[in-house]
Amino acid sequence: MTEEQSPSQIITPVFKLKTLEATRARARASRQLKSLFEPASIAIVGASARQGAVGQAVFRNLLLNGFTGTLYPVNHRHHSIMGVKTYPSVAAIDDPVDLAILIVPAASVPAVLEDCAGKGVNSAIIISAGFKETGPEGRELELRVRQQAREAGIALLGPNCLGLINTDPKVSMNATFARSMAQPGNIAFMSQSGALCTSILDYAGTQNIGFSKFISFGNKADIDENDLLRYLGSDPQTQVILMYVEDLGNGLDFIHIAREITSEQERCKPILALKSGRTAEGARAAASHTGSLAGTDEVYDAVMAQAGVLRVDTVQELFDYAMAFANQPMPRHDRVAIVTNAGGPGIMATDACVRQGLKLAEFSEATRQTLQAALPPAASVKNPVDVLGDAQHDRYQSTLEAVLKDENTDGLIVILTPQNMTDIEEIARGVTALNLRYDKPILASFMGGTDVAAGVRLLRQHGVPHYPFPEGAARVMRAMRTYRRWLDRPRTEERIFEVNRAEVQRIFNRARSEGRNRLPELEAMQVLAAYGFPVLRSGLARCREDVAELGQQVGYPLVMKIASPDILHKTDIGGVRVGVTDLPAAEEVFDDMMARARAKHPEANIWGINVQQMARRGREVILGATRDPKFGPMVMFGLGGIYTEALKDVTFRLAPLRQLSARHMLEEIRGRRILEGIRGEAPADFDALQECLERLSQLVIEFPAIDELDINPLIAYENGAAVADARIILGA
Amino acid sequence: MTEEQSPSQIITPVFKLKTLEATRARARASRQLKSLFEPASIAIVGASARQGAVGQAVFRNLLLNGFTGTLYPVNHRHHSIMGVKTYPSVAAIDDPVDLAILIVPAASVPAVLEDCAGKGVNSAIIISAGFKETGPEGRELELRVRQQAREAGIALLGPNCLGLINTDPKVSMNATFARSMAQPGNIAFMSQSGALCTSILDYAGTQNIGFSKFISFGNKADIDENDLLRYLGSDPQTQVILMYVEDLGNGLDFIHIAREITSEQERCKPILALKSGRTAEGARAAASHTGSLAGTDEVYDAVMAQAGVLRVDTVQELFDYAMAFANQPMPRHDRVAIVTNAGGPGIMATDACVRQGLKLAEFSEATRQTLQAALPPAASVKNPVDVLGDAQHDRYQSTLEAVLKDENTDGLIVILTPQNMTDIEEIARGVTALNLRYDKPILASFMGGTDVAAGVRLLRQHGVPHYPFPEGAARVMRAMRTYRRWLDRPRTEERIFEVNRAEVQRIFNRARSEGRNRLPELEAMQVLAAYGFPVLRSGLARCREDVAELGQQVGYPLVMKIASPDILHKTDIGGVRVGVTDLPAAEEVFDDMMARARAKHPEANIWGINVQQMARRGREVILGATRDPKFGPMVMFGLGGIYTEALKDVTFRLAPLRQLSARHMLEEIRGRRILEGIRGEAPADFDALQECLERLSQLVIEFPAIDELDINPLIAYENGAAVADARIILGA
Repeated sequence: MTEEQSPSQIITPVFKLKTLEATRARARASRQLKSLFEPASIAIVGASARQGAVGQAVFRNLLLNGFTGTLYPVNHRHHSIMGVKTYPSVAAIDDPVDLAILIVPAASVPAVLEDCAGKGVNSAIIISAGFKETGPEGRELELRVRQQAREAGIALLGPNCLGLINTDPKVSMNATFARSMAQPGNIAFMSQSGALCTSILDYAGTQNIGFSKFISFGNKADIDENDLLRYLGSDPQTQVILMYVEDLGNGLDFIHIAREITSEQERCKPILALKSGRTAEGARAAASHTGSLAGTDEVYDAVMAQAGVLRVDTVQELFDYAMAFANQPMPRHDRVAIVTNAGGPGIMATDACVRQGLKLAEFSEATRQTLQAALPPAASVKNPVDVLGDAQHDRYQSTLEAVLKDENTDGLIVILTPQNMTDIEEIARGVTALNLRYDKPILASFMGGTDVAAGVRLLRQHGVPHYPFPEGAARVMRAMRTYRRWLDRPRTEERIFEVNRAEVQRIFNRARSEGRNRLPELEAMQVLAAYGFPVLRSGLARCREDVAELGQQVGYPLVMKIASPDILHKTDIGGVRVGVTDLPAAEEVFDDMMARARAKHPEANIWGINVQQMARRGREVILGATRDPKFGPMVMFGLGGIYTEALKDVTFRLAPLRQLSARHMLEEIRGRRILEGIRGEAPADFDALQECLERLSQLVIEFPAIDELDINPLIAYENGAAVADARIILGA
Repeated sequence: MTEEQSPSQIITPVFKLKTLEATRARARASRQLKSLFEPASIAIVGASARQGAVGQAVFRNLLLNGFTGTLYPVNHRHHSIMGVKTYPSVAAIDDPVDLAILIVPAASVPAVLEDCAGKGVNSAIIISAGFKETGPEGRELELRVRQQAREAGIALLGPNCLGLINTDPKVSMNATFARSMAQPGNIAFMSQSGALCTSILDYAGTQNIGFSKFISFGNKADIDENDLLRYLGSDPQTQVILMYVEDLGNGLDFIHIAREITSEQERCKPILALKSGRTAEGARAAASHTGSLAGTDEVYDAVMAQAGVLRVDTVQELFDYAMAFANQPMPRHDRVAIVTNAGGPGIMATDACVRQGLKLAEFSEATRQTLQAALPPAASVKNPVDVLGDAQHDRYQSTLEAVLKDENTDGLIVILTPQNMTDIEEIARGVTALNLRYDKPILASFMGGTDVAAGVRLLRQHGVPHYPFPEGAARVMRAMRTYRRWLDRPRTEERIFEVNRAEVQRIFNRARSEGRNRLPELEAMQVLAAYGFPVLRSGLARCREDVAELGQQVGYPLVMKIASPDILHKTDIGGVRVGVTDLPAAEEVFDDMMARARAKHPEANIWGINVQQMARRGREVILGATRDPKFGPMVMFGLGGIYTEALKDVTFRLAPLRQLSARHMLEEIRGRRILEGIRGEAPADFDALQECLERLSQLVIEFPAIDELDINPLIAYENGAAVADARIILGA
């Protein structure tokens, strides 16, 4: 083994900061979405008097839920519906129309839209199904309708959706065919599935969950989740945004918009997303490790992480979280106080908190004394505080107040079990009285059924989130803490390094001109060297005579590898030799390896033998890049070696990477302890690894020609790192 | 590198099967527990007339819930309570007493128990608190009471508990101070936490969950979870057993009893356990890897796995699972059919099933044709089957029947969202009509709140488990599948190998006589060799002259390691050299290594240099053993190298190991794919690894002197395996 050139010399950190021009989304005129959410007048095309008809349900919901504007039912067969005069067509309405709702057969939609365009309608909701969800013909029709709407400047929601609810008392619009109206609240919900909406409206009604806006956006022919996010981001009624999506139209836009909404310190709003179809599509076939590890779901994980969006797995979590995010402050740190009247549930809550990565608050001496004075001797004044089974509201009250006051408490979980003497409603009232007094989140778990029901109702009415069991509360506390960390994160930018783009272009051009899209190690290393990566010293020995000089330049012992664009699996033909200690040995290896290669691959173009510095031992990681068909270039980081594949301990981000994102990638793999150093070993050079990730990001952004790239392994040292092998695959 | 002796030659499989005598628990006389659960007469000592008193609540609950025997309230201040004549003492009761319930101050308990003993009472429940939970004095009192009960042959439940409910109509006993009576059912619940019981009774009431027995066992001074399990195992009213425990008294007994209950094909009963305190105690300080990885929680995981008990994390899971286990058959395989009237929830259910390791059933051609005929053209006849939003009960019905009939379906999840036309109760009725007709589990998720409430009630009343969201159903289906796999597992026994016990005893004796409890590599390898492990060839070179012969015996290249009981970290002093290729080099290493060791550790007893065969490269795993202070010897398996520590990818079992348990250990680590072979690599020799685990189990069972043991690494090959390093620590 030999000392290679110190990687800190190899990496030349050129910290020329400059913001990459962000991909800006087509910003929809806010006037248009305003006409959709706050119309002064609505034409309901297909309004019906027939019981059970969707056209009846929509009209009825609008009429009976206090819409503050004017309704124009359009129906040429009836003179009036539910007592309201109808019009034979949109054109026949003698006042301006802000919003048209279409509940007509799909085939009739274009004609109605034309009518709307003529009338100068600003926005439309197409409730009707029969579009792209039905096949090629429907898709055709949908494209035509979208085209029509865009030409006419009509903002279009749907088709194939449930509609839209705006509970703002200034509007009070239920433009859906749902069975019930949403209660007013500060949570906005948008869903790609209309059927899910009906379930959620029904569920939310029983849970005291109120909505600001409730939107089913269906096939999103025109208005998509990004448009809606932008609107909800500046909607004063909305404090939390929930989304159910099955795909995202434009990932980069989504990141850009969602980051802004979730990050702005002044009026930031948490976004919680349930993205289904996690398991529907597997990883695609790919020529690189990175490609084969980048399933669709990993892309969405990356997108959500970079956007500051909390991804949840179930509807239950979505609303469990929403109740807290809508009503409670986020915990400043991770120290949780638990107050309970029963030991067992206290232990359960402790387990759950620790499992969620939270800590149990350690109370100050003053708090302990206060508790000792307030509680019977058998009570536990340590966290979790057990106020004992016979506790009534006074004992709960003084305990809750003491632990909330303690500066070592960042959040509180209050647990109750219904014992004989427990005055449940009084205790609930006490909790609500403390709520929001300390700028610390309070979550409750009153465990039971009928006995606790009235208390639970009280809590919920006063904005104290309640969970049937303590584990739910712990999970929510963790989510709140995660979001607070996102808010408090240091804001970083992309770094742009000085690199040799021309050299990379030259290498790519040559490969292209030779009809190759796979760059073998030699070329891949040249590309990385041009981008300032710490590559091992190496050179190509074209003939036996080159070996001596290269050996001296590189330094013994050597690694020697066959260099040919046509031989992909070098080891299969004995094309790799490590630890070649001197010149005679190296010359022998040269002859032997060339002969083998020619014998096994007589047709191959053999460039020679790659003579390489032998890497010191270190910790092996893998860096990679791949290009998602929808979201563009992604960067991967993971543990190297066989563990990459076997344990899938890798993480992805969309490029370009900000500094912090690159750092987070290093920190979030399961095997990070290996990088941090175990058994007293020094930590790996996180700065060097981070910089490699950032340089990789820059490379794939600046060269869209790169389809897939593996740096495998990158060897991490205490100081610096070294690329030991790499390959690049160019796009067609 | 050289070929070592084929490990299959080294391992001599001596398959002399013989059952180790199982540790048999003191089997409590069933007469005694019968008198506790089915007493003909009860003395309530401390029965009270005072509103709010526990003694009043217990007596009231007994009197008003239809107890079929005779009640004798004992109270010397009142002539009658609630109209029932009282007695001044147990002795004063003029009839035989089966069960005494004590609700008296802790200090009075011994006197009352003496009274009971005199009367010939068979069993007692001590509701009173004030025992070991309060400190040393209470602990003292509890020990005295236990002693008293055992001497008098009284089976004692408690102290510090809520009491006991038996809903069997032949008994109908509510001997608790809970606010409500349990509904009758086939689920038995036992809890170490009394307060949790009150919450669960209240919760269960609102969820239509019925109980056969409901037991709070408190401090378990006498009767513990094992006694109760044995009773419930043969209780005809009980089909499923739920436990909440904070610790287990006797792990081996527990495994033995629980295995019998969960396994017997005829009348097997699933056991679901919530063990809290997962995170309370960390891993203890230990001298070996294995010891440091064996936290308390890993022990419980091992105990539960070997007992066939499903461990759950939350109360929610406990009851979610119980509802299904109590009412539904277990799925024969893992193929789930999903029927839904909404696309989104169908995708969510699919995601959840796949995440749970279940498969989506692929329907037969016949089923597809039936569905095509029954459903509108826009419906999806592939799994998940989407019957569309306008589906009513007839469409659901024919669909459900078709997929249940299909032999490719092992279980069904039926999802409903409340759409305008959905006749929810009719659909629920249809589901209940199909329930149990096909010997396949049906789980439902009618998503919503008020709208679906009546339908949900109908389902539950007819034994169809219902979950608010599809993810809950998927999780339960997985748990059922896990249990079914447990039932269907091949039954194996412990294998006993022919080994050289005398040799091991000799090595241990020598170490002891030298005042050592740490066996360095050389001795540890001798011990393993005596137990038939495939150890590398090696020998001790005491002087330079030994090297030549050993080199020839072992074969070049060699590994040479310093051998000294006083040098634990060999590498620190350059005490390990690999790849020594010939005799001159070996002799030089000998001199050099001895000199270094003497220089750095002048006081050390240096035995010489261990000359060892150099192992071929293979996949490194770690095997280990440790001794839990409560449960005895445990065996560990995991991936070797730094990953053991960094990823904690290890698994434990209590010894002795059956063959199947050993196999499962290999299969359940996350990194098993590395053993199975990735990228076309051949699988490791699972049989050899399994045998090593079994031999290790035998070793630690037969030598209780072993406190900790690491085999690290064991190198796994395509054929066989080889121990490359090991250490043993003996108990004090």
